[in-house]
Amino acid sequence: MAANKPTIPKGTRDFGPAEVQKRKYILNTIEGVFKKYGFMPIETPTMENLTTLEGKYGDEGDKLLFRILDSGSFDHRRNLLISYTVEIIRKIISDTLKDVSSDYKNAFNANIRGIDGHFISYNQQITPSDKKTIAQIILEVSNELFSNLNDIKSNSDHVIDKLISIVKPTIESYFNLVGNVNPTNTEKGLRYDLTVPFARYVVMNRNEITFPFKRYQMQPVWRADRPQKGRYREFWQCDADVVGSDSLLNEVDLIQIYDEAFTKLGITHYELRMNNRKVLAGIAEVVKSVEYMNTIAVAIDKLDKIGEEGVRKELSEQKFSESELDKLFEIISIKGENEVVLNTLKTKLQHSAEGIKGINELEFIIAAIQPITQTTSQQINLKLDFSLARGLSYYTGAIFEVVSTEGSLKSSIGGGGRYDNLTGIFGLPNVSGVGISFGLDRIYDVMEELKLFPNGLNTTSTRVLICTFDQATQAYALAPLRQLRDAGIAAELYPDLKKLGKQLDYANALHIPYAMIIGDTEMQSGKLVLKDLTKGTQQELSINEIVDNLK
Amino acid sequence: MAANKPTIPKGTRDFGPAEVQKRKYILNTIEGVFKKYGFMPIETPTMENLTTLEGKYGDEGDKLLFRILDSGSFDHRRNLLISYTVEIIRKIISDTLKDVSSDYKNAFNANIRGIDGHFISYNQQITPSDKKTIAQIILEVSNELFSNLNDIKSNSDHVIDKLISIVKPTIESYFNLVGNVNPTNTEKGLRYDLTVPFARYVVMNRNEITFPFKRYQMQPVWRADRPQKGRYREFWQCDADVVGSDSLLNEVDLIQIYDEAFTKLGITHYELRMNNRKVLAGIAEVVKSVEYMNTIAVAIDKLDKIGEEGVRKELSEQKFSESELDKLFEIISIKGENEVVLNTLKTKLQHSAEGIKGINELEFIIAAIQPITQTTSQQINLKLDFSLARGLSYYTGAIFEVVSTEGSLKSSIGGGGRYDNLTGIFGLPNVSGVGISFGLDRIYDVMEELKLFPNGLNTTSTRVLICTFDQATQAYALAPLRQLRDAGIAAELYPDLKKLGKQLDYANALHIPYAMIIGDTEMQSGKLVLKDLTKGTQQELSINEIVDNLK
Repeated sequence: MAANKPTIPKGTRDFGPAEVQKRKYILNTIEGVFKKYGFMPIETPTMENLTTLEGKYGDEGDKLLFRILDSGSFDHRRNLLISYTVEIIRKIISDTLKDVSSDYKNAFNANIRGIDGHFISYNQQITPSDKKTIAQIILEVSNELFSNLNDIKSNSDHVIDKLISIVKPTIESYFNLVGNVNPTNTEKGLRYDLTVPFARYVVMNRNEITFPFKRYQMQPVWRADRPQKGRYREFWQCDADVVGSDSLLNEVDLIQIYDEAFTKLGITHYELRMNNRKVLAGIAEVVKSVEYMNTIAVAIDKLDKIGEEGVRKELSEQKFSESELDKLFEIISIKGENEVVLNTLKTKLQHSAEGIKGINELEFIIAAIQPITQTTSQQINLKLDFSLARGLSYYTGAIFEVVSTEGSLKSSIGGGGRYDNLTGIFGLPNVSGVGISFGLDRIYDVMEELKLFPNGLNTTSTRVLICTFDQATQAYALAPLRQLRDAGIAAELYPDLKKLGKQLDYANALHIPYAMIIGDTEMQSGKLVLKDLTKGTQQELSINEIVDNLK
Repeated sequence: MAANKPTIPKGTRDFGPAEVQKRKYILNTIEGVFKKYGFMPIETPTMENLTTLEGKYGDEGDKLLFRILDSGSFDHRRNLLISYTVEIIRKIISDTLKDVSSDYKNAFNANIRGIDGHFISYNQQITPSDKKTIAQIILEVSNELFSNLNDIKSNSDHVIDKLISIVKPTIESYFNLVGNVNPTNTEKGLRYDLTVPFARYVVMNRNEITFPFKRYQMQPVWRADRPQKGRYREFWQCDADVVGSDSLLNEVDLIQIYDEAFTKLGITHYELRMNNRKVLAGIAEVVKSVEYMNTIAVAIDKLDKIGEEGVRKELSEQKFSESELDKLFEIISIKGENEVVLNTLKTKLQHSAEGIKGINELEFIIAAIQPITQTTSQQINLKLDFSLARGLSYYTGAIFEVVSTEGSLKSSIGGGGRYDNLTGIFGLPNVSGVGISFGLDRIYDVMEELKLFPNGLNTTSTRVLICTFDQATQAYALAPLRQLRDAGIAAELYPDLKKLGKQLDYANALHIPYAMIIGDTEMQSGKLVLKDLTKGTQQELSINEIVDNLK
C-alpha cells in the first residue's frame, strides 16, 4: 500500500503524555482557584453560528474566523443543485414548446426572462443565493439550448430528455466552476474566544440562571492567524467572568484570582497592569475631545509594536496637533507608585467627570486590594498603566493585562476587563459583566522556559510493572495484578513474552518505580520479587505484603 | 440596537454547571480506571488534514465529515483571485496590442488560447483549481473585452486601465458566482473519531514512543449526522488503546476496564458482547466462501435494524442460497453459556483454520477473565455473540460492543476491537493495536434516566457565602474572606448591596451550605454569625473559629 506521510494542520499541535500532564497541571491549578472563589463551570459548543460570532471582534477578527461547510458532502449538494437546474430547464422547454402558435425564440426568451417564476415552489435546501447561481447558469446555457431547441421543435419527453442531455455537461461543468459550494453554505464557525459564546449562553439561559452568575470556562478557541512562535491556531483559554453585578468587588476578586493562580504556578515575576476605559475617555476629553477615545485606544494599543513615534504619526494623521500629542504622552507616561500616580492623574483629569469616575474606580480597587496584600504578606504586583488600552471594543470599565517579566517570553499571559453591554448584542441589555482570561499555551511556554513544572508529573500513573517469563507465569500474574488494582494501586502486566531486560527497559522508559517479577520459583513459593527500580533494591514478599507496602 | 435572538447550531449543546459537573464525574471515573490500568493521556488537534481523515470511515463516513475553509476570510481570497485575473488580462491585452502588424482578432484569440502560458510564475496561493477557474472566467469576458479592444487599438497604460475597468464588474460578478471559494480551499476537517488521529499520531511519533504504547484520549468528535434523540453532532469519546502488542492479555485488560468503569458509574445492567472477525471469516468459509466475510459482516451488522428477514433478503440478492442462509443463521444464533456456545461453534467451524483461530482467541480471553471474576466475586457480563459484526472495516480480531440493558435507552454505550493494519495506512505496517471506546454522551443519557449520578455533585464549590449590609461591612469582610480562602475553604462575598433575604436566596439557589453574616454589631464584636443553611441553625463565632469549624 502506498502510504502518505501524515502531517497535522499548520498552527495545531499534538500533545503527548508528558505535555498533557503539564497542561493538566496548569488547568487543574487555575480551576482550583476558580472554584475556591465560587465560580461554576460551563461549556459551549465548538461550533457557533456565524451570526453569533461575526461583527464581535472587529474586521480583523472576522477574517480570522474558521468557517465550516454546512454539509458533510460536496457531492450531495452539487447533485441536488444540478438536478434542480435540470428540472427548471425542463419546465422552460416544455413551456416554450407548448406555445406552438408563437415564435419559438420569443417564447423561449420570455421563459428565460421569467425564470424567477419557476422558482416558486422551490426546495427548502435551495437558498436565495443558489437561485441566483442557477438563474445565471441557465442564462449561460440558453444559447446552446435554443440553437438545439430551434432545430427540433417537438414537445415530447423523449425530445426534452435529449435536449437536456446536450446541455447537462455544460451545467455540470458550471457547477464544478462554482466549486460545488455557495457562501450561504457556511453558517457555522469555530469558537474564537469564550466571552462572546458566554454572553450568548447567558442570554439564552437567562431564566434558569441565578444572578450574579459567576462562571468559569476552560476550552480551546481557534483563530486563523499566521502561525508563529507562541501563536497557535488552536489554543486554550481559561476564563472567569461575573455577569449581573456591577460591584467593583468583582474586580477585586479577579485580581486575587490572577495573583493566586500565578503564584501557585510559580510565575512570581509578573506584572498585573490595570487601567480603566473611563480614564481613557477622560484623557481623550482633556487632550482633544471625548469622541476620540477609541481612536486613542486603538493607537496606543500598538505602543509596544510601533513605539511612541509610530503612535504619534498615526494620531497626527487623525488630526492630532503636536501639542495635543505632547499632552497625551505626558499623561499616559505617568509612572510611579499607584497612589502617587493616581493623584497626579487626578489633577490632569480634574475637568473630566468621566475621567474622575474612572479614577475613583481605580482608587476603590487599589484600596480594597491593599489590606489583603498586607494580611497575607503577599505583594500583589498590581500596576496602574494609563497606556494600557486593549483591542476589544466592548470594554467599558476596568481593563487588565498580565505580562510575564522573567525569561525571554515577555508575552501577555492573561487579560480581561469590564463590559457593560455585551449581552445587549443578543437582546439582554443592562447586564454588566467583568472577566479575566488565562492563556494556557502562553503560560505553558513561560513555565517550560523557566522550568517551573514540579518534578512529580510522570507520564504514567503505573506504580508496578509485573514481569513474567512464559504463558504459565502470565496466567498466574492475572490474579495478583487484579489484587493490586482492587487496592487502588495502578499496575500493569507486560503483555508480550519478551526478555526480562526488555520488560525492565519499558519500566525505566516510563519511570515506573516498581517491578514485580514472577518466575517459576515465585509462582511456586508465592513469594514474589518486588524490585525498587529507583533504588535498585529488591525484596521477596507475598502479594498481600506487596499490596500493604505500596498502598 | 436590533438584537438577533441567539441560537446554537443543530446537534450541538451548551452544558450548564450542573451538566458539566455530571459530565466531569463520568470523565473522571473513566479516566481514573484508565490510569489504574497504566494508560497515558494524549490529545490531538480538533482539525485534521482531510488526507488523514478521508477514506478511513467508508463512503458514509466521508459524507459526515465537517469540512473547514482554509482561510478565515472569503474577501481576502476573492480579492486576490480578482487582482490576479486582472493582471493576466492586462498581459493578454498588452501582448495583443504589441503585435500591431497582425490582425487584432487573431492575436487576441491566440493569446486567449495560450492562456496557460500566462500562469507560469503564478502566485503560491493560486491553486491549479484556481487557474482553471480564472481561465474559464477570462474566456467568458473575452467577447466583451475584444469588442472594446477592437474600437480602441492603442497600447497605453491608460487605455488598458480603461478596458479593464469595463470588464472588471463582470469578473467580480463571476467571482461572486464562484462563491468566493474553491473546493481546494478545504483541506481540513473536524476530528471524526479518536482512533484514526491516534494511528496518525503513532506514526508521526514512532521514534519517541516506547512500545507497547498504552494511551487514553478523551476528546470531542464531530459528525454531520442528522441530529436526533441520543445522537449529537458534537459528542465525546473516551478511548483506551494499546498499540505494538498482539498479546490477548490486552483484550483481557480492556474487558476489565469496561467492567470496572461501568460498575463504578453504577451501570450494572449492561452486556459486554464479544465476537471475533476471524470467527466471522470462518463462518463465511463454512457457509459459502471466505471472501464473503465482509458481505456477511455488513449485512448482519444491520440485524437490529432490519431483522433476520431483512438480512436474508439482502444476502439473497448477493447470491446466497436458502440453505446457505439457513446455515448462517443457525450459527450466528447460537445462544447459551459461553463455554457451551464455543464448543458448539467449534464443531460447526471445524473445517475452517481461520475460524478455529478465532475460537482459540475467544477461549483464551474467556479463560483469562474467569478466575478474575471469581476472585473478585464480581461477575463480568461478557457474552459471546456471533452475530456481532461492527461496521468499521479495519477490525481483524476481537470485536466488542457494550449495550445498556436497563431503562428505555438500550443503546450502545461503548465499542472497540483489534486492528492489525491501521497504522499501515500512514506508513507504519505490522503494528497491531486493540482499543475500546466509551461514549460519554450516551452514558450520560443512560445515567440521567436511571438516576445514577451521586447526590454530592453540586454546581458550585462554594461552602460559605458572606453577606454584608453596606460598604463598611463589605470592606470589613474582605479580610475574613481571604482568611477562609487561604485555609482552602471555597467562599464568596455577595458583591452587591442587596437585602439579606435576596443574598440568602442566592445561597439557597446554589445550595451553598453556610452563610456568614456581618453587620455593624458583628464588625465591632468580631463575633461573626455563621448560619447553617441546611439545618437552619446559627452560631456566633470568631473568624478563626469559623475557619477551624469548616476546615
